[in-house]
Amino acid sequence: MTLENYANVMLPVIEEELFKTVGWMKNYDSGDLYDLLAFHMGWSAYNDSPATKGKRIRPLMVTLCTAAAGGEWRNALPVAAGVELIHNFSLIHDDIEDNSPLRRGRPTLWKKWNIPLAINAGDAMFTLAHLAVLQLENIVSKTIALQAIQLLHETCLRLTSGQHLDITYENRDFLELEAYWPMVQGKTAALLAACTELGPLIADSDQGTRAAFREFGYALGLAFQALDDLLGIWGDSALTGKSAESDLITRKKSLPILYGLSVNGKFASRWRQGSISTTELREVAGLLEGEGAREYTQKIADQYTTRALNMLSAAHPEPKAGSALQELAHQLLKRRS
Amino acid sequence: MTLENYANVMLPVIEEELFKTVGWMKNYDSGDLYDLLAFHMGWSAYNDSPATKGKRIRPLMVTLCTAAAGGEWRNALPVAAGVELIHNFSLIHDDIEDNSPLRRGRPTLWKKWNIPLAINAGDAMFTLAHLAVLQLENIVSKTIALQAIQLLHETCLRLTSGQHLDITYENRDFLELEAYWPMVQGKTAALLAACTELGPLIADSDQGTRAAFREFGYALGLAFQALDDLLGIWGDSALTGKSAESDLITRKKSLPILYGLSVNGKFASRWRQGSISTTELREVAGLLEGEGAREYTQKIADQYTTRALNMLSAAHPEPKAGSALQELAHQLLKRRS
Repeated sequence: MTLENYANVMLPVIEEELFKTVGWMKNYDSGDLYDLLAFHMGWSAYNDSPATKGKRIRPLMVTLCTAAAGGEWRNALPVAAGVELIHNFSLIHDDIEDNSPLRRGRPTLWKKWNIPLAINAGDAMFTLAHLAVLQLENIVSKTIALQAIQLLHETCLRLTSGQHLDITYENRDFLELEAYWPMVQGKTAALLAACTELGPLIADSDQGTRAAFREFGYALGLAFQALDDLLGIWGDSALTGKSAESDLITRKKSLPILYGLSVNGKFASRWRQGSISTTELREVAGLLEGEGAREYTQKIADQYTTRALNMLSAAHPEPKAGSALQELAHQLLKRRS
Repeated sequence: MTLENYANVMLPVIEEELFKTVGWMKNYDSGDLYDLLAFHMGWSAYNDSPATKGKRIRPLMVTLCTAAAGGEWRNALPVAAGVELIHNFSLIHDDIEDNSPLRRGRPTLWKKWNIPLAINAGDAMFTLAHLAVLQLENIVSKTIALQAIQLLHETCLRLTSGQHLDITYENRDFLELEAYWPMVQGKTAALLAACTELGPLIADSDQGTRAAFREFGYALGLAFQALDDLLGIWGDSALTGKSAESDLITRKKSLPILYGLSVNGKFASRWRQGSISTTELREVAGLLEGEGAREYTQKIADQYTTRALNMLSAAHPEPKAGSALQELAHQLLKRRS
């Protein structure tokens, strides 16, 4: 079975689980709160935009890791739905916090409705995520259900902690390079680590296996973020400034930028002079590359990629699901490049 | 033991539990997210304003109901903390959604920091609430822990549903009287009903007792809201327009106002003409009273008060804790009058 085979089998079942879970809202709501949730999940069209779902990478990671740990992947459906809804709850709130008007080519929830309704819809999505996970009680056991709930709540504390740092960093002129890690550990790595740990938890694997799976997701998250940051400056659309996709324009405190600031050379002095325009993008990106930021970021991404793949081997996955996970990891790390 | 005796024993222990739970944030956070949470909980001072905690009525309701159901009230501490943190999470988000700059005489979280950080702090508070409840597993049993978690998540869906209606009502000129109930059932009654049901759940009472306790809280919530709505127009500070406390000025879709609109007489035509000024307050309140809105609202409040007290009797509470609960109900219903 290739990744594609697995995805073809698992993704429709995951989508059905998501659809069922979000549908519970209708039992509690006499208004149209459900419509906001369904729109965000990409199940309903908007004007000329078709319905556009996310890639559902996280729930797929959960079901694949369950299979790779020797478990029955269908038992993981409640947590697979749970992590995807947590991811989507955080997107709804992040879009407000970052003032983002668009997501996947469509208006964000706060833009299409308003900020108060979008905050509240995010809270509802968050609650549905946890309700999804509770079903584990009847599918696996009370003990595993409670462990999964605990793991997800702790993950959410890490998410909010990372998001808090990200928001506060926006208003700081200078940041040391080390400030990067607690932010991305919370914002990106924590949820992926939870996804890969939930698999062996559902499969009732031993602690060592759980730890190896967890580290696989964690390192994968960090590699993914470093690479995403690299492409945020040297990717094709970033260099041309198309749709202001360059982190140099949005002034995101990304890894290469923090590296450049720590070098404190020509890039840093240009940065301190204020906004960088589209026409300057290639020049400033060149400055940053000349000071070693690109090479440094690539090295970090490579290190974490190697660590992720080593950890996956160390987890001794069931061969077919394991190689599908390897494929998924490579796919993730090739995104946008 | 009077209510005061119980409160003197229970409230400090509840506060300690809250303090411990919110303190968990420090294990996950390298920034100052904890400071926002502690400020909102009223544990830290701000400029000239002293620290001001809420009344902690909901957790007290939980511990009293546990004692009244013959249980050990200390076993209920995790859920008591849980409901208070859910209440506070919803206050943090409501203050943003309602654009409220002040709470208990101090700036609200979004006003003191900013909207992005406040949304995120609310999410953290919500997560801590659920983490608190998980401790039940080791105090009572896995089964009861899972039931309490399910009950609280369902309550949160009701809260978000009520809040969604409240926000959408703001932009509607006309609302039929019946639209009032699904909103206040979600916004006010659901969490109080959860508080009173959690007591007998922790005490492992039978279903009939649980239902009676639940109905007690539910009816109490509705009585409280009707009375609050009455005072929002005919209370002393509402009539004088002090700090714009009249619902006639804020144009809240409260029970007497919806009643007045359904009568469709002089009040309704004045309402449709737009904003009501401080100088007109007594006159318009008089119009509304003349059309029977005050009497109607008082009657509803009385009916639900009677129902609440009947349900409390039907629950056959342990006498001392039962009479303290009666006292607490009366105290709640005298607020602001």
